[in-house]
Amino acid sequence: MTTPVIQRYEKTAKLSRVVVHQGTAYLSGLTAADKSVGIKGQTEQILARADALLASIGSNKSQLLYVQIWLKDISDFDAMNEVWLDWIDADAPPARATVQSSMALPEILIEVQIVAAV
Amino acid sequence: MTTPVIQRYEKTAKLSRVVVHQGTAYLSGLTAADKSVGIKGQTEQILARADALLASIGSNKSQLLYVQIWLKDISDFDAMNEVWLDWIDADAPPARATVQSSMALPEILIEVQIVAAV
Amino acid sequence: MTTPVIQRYEKTAKLSRVVVHQGTAYLSGLTAADKSVGIKGQTEQILARADALLASIGSNKSQLLYVQIWLKDISDFDAMNEVWLDWIDADAPPARATVQSSMALPEILIEVQIVAAV
Repeated sequence: MTTPVIQRYEKTAKLSRVVVHQGTAYLSGLTAADKSVGIKGQTEQILARADALLASIGSNKSQLLYVQIWLKDISDFDAMNEVWLDWIDADAPPARATVQSSMALPEILIEVQIVAAV
Repeated sequence: MTTPVIQRYEKTAKLSRVVVHQGTAYLSGLTAADKSVGIKGQTEQILARADALLASIGSNKSQLLYVQIWLKDISDFDAMNEVWLDWIDADAPPARATVQSSMALPEILIEVQIVAAV
Repeated sequence: MTTPVIQRYEKTAKLSRVVVHQGTAYLSGLTAADKSVGIKGQTEQILARADALLASIGSNKSQLLYVQIWLKDISDFDAMNEVWLDWIDADAPPARATVQSSMALPEILIEVQIVAAV
């Protein structure tokens, strides 16, 4: 038995922001750095962060496979989607699911977890 | 670096219902078309939709890898499971997790997200 | 078209505890066997169970790709993390996301779902 080849990027004590295995990248849940802003601002920050993380591994938003979105308040669904539609590659949208959950801090309005191809 | 081969099916403005990469299919979260019915009816609709989506990519329920289930009310767990047990291939059950979350519309009682082999 | 090779371990009527496809293992959501204990005890039980399940397929915690954690009460975040930090391979942390959800039984304080390389 051989050991799988796994690449890890931006490791913290608790987690790796990105883990790559056999051409598939698993990103940790992303939240906005500036949590003082509303749902649109937090979504924009997260998607910009996703762009940067994907670029760092030679991927990009046209290679998204699955995106999991958690909203603290599901009534933010339409506002989140406006930012989402501005961002995604319209020719290459990922599979997606959005549900309501509270996150680690009360000021987190949205968290996004991405699986992408590399 | 070569671009990964990714197939997308049933694209909408926001998402693809199915994304396939390297023999693994990621489905978007599925909800019932007719949301006026109860948990059993919604579950039946979703699993029938899953059958159709899987068939469209040459897969089927015996090739499920992981199924994520969200229930609006976790007390629907047993009723959902009755429909689930009638549906799954008993020789080939997937890994599964079920938790409670609210979904995009208040009348959505269950949402299901599937990862399958193709 | 060939049928994908899928291995399933610890099958119950409803699910497989572990499903392996193309070098990737999907584990079902894990909960503590003894649910009478608090968040730390439940987390310890789950992570010990993960160790055993991973060992049974020739994997281990240094090969984790993605870990999804649900907490019944997100205020248990720090206590969960203490146990998590004691457990993980500090050189090989997975991608991770933690959100709040209720689980199938009210005494379940934490559920953990794992994707790992084999």
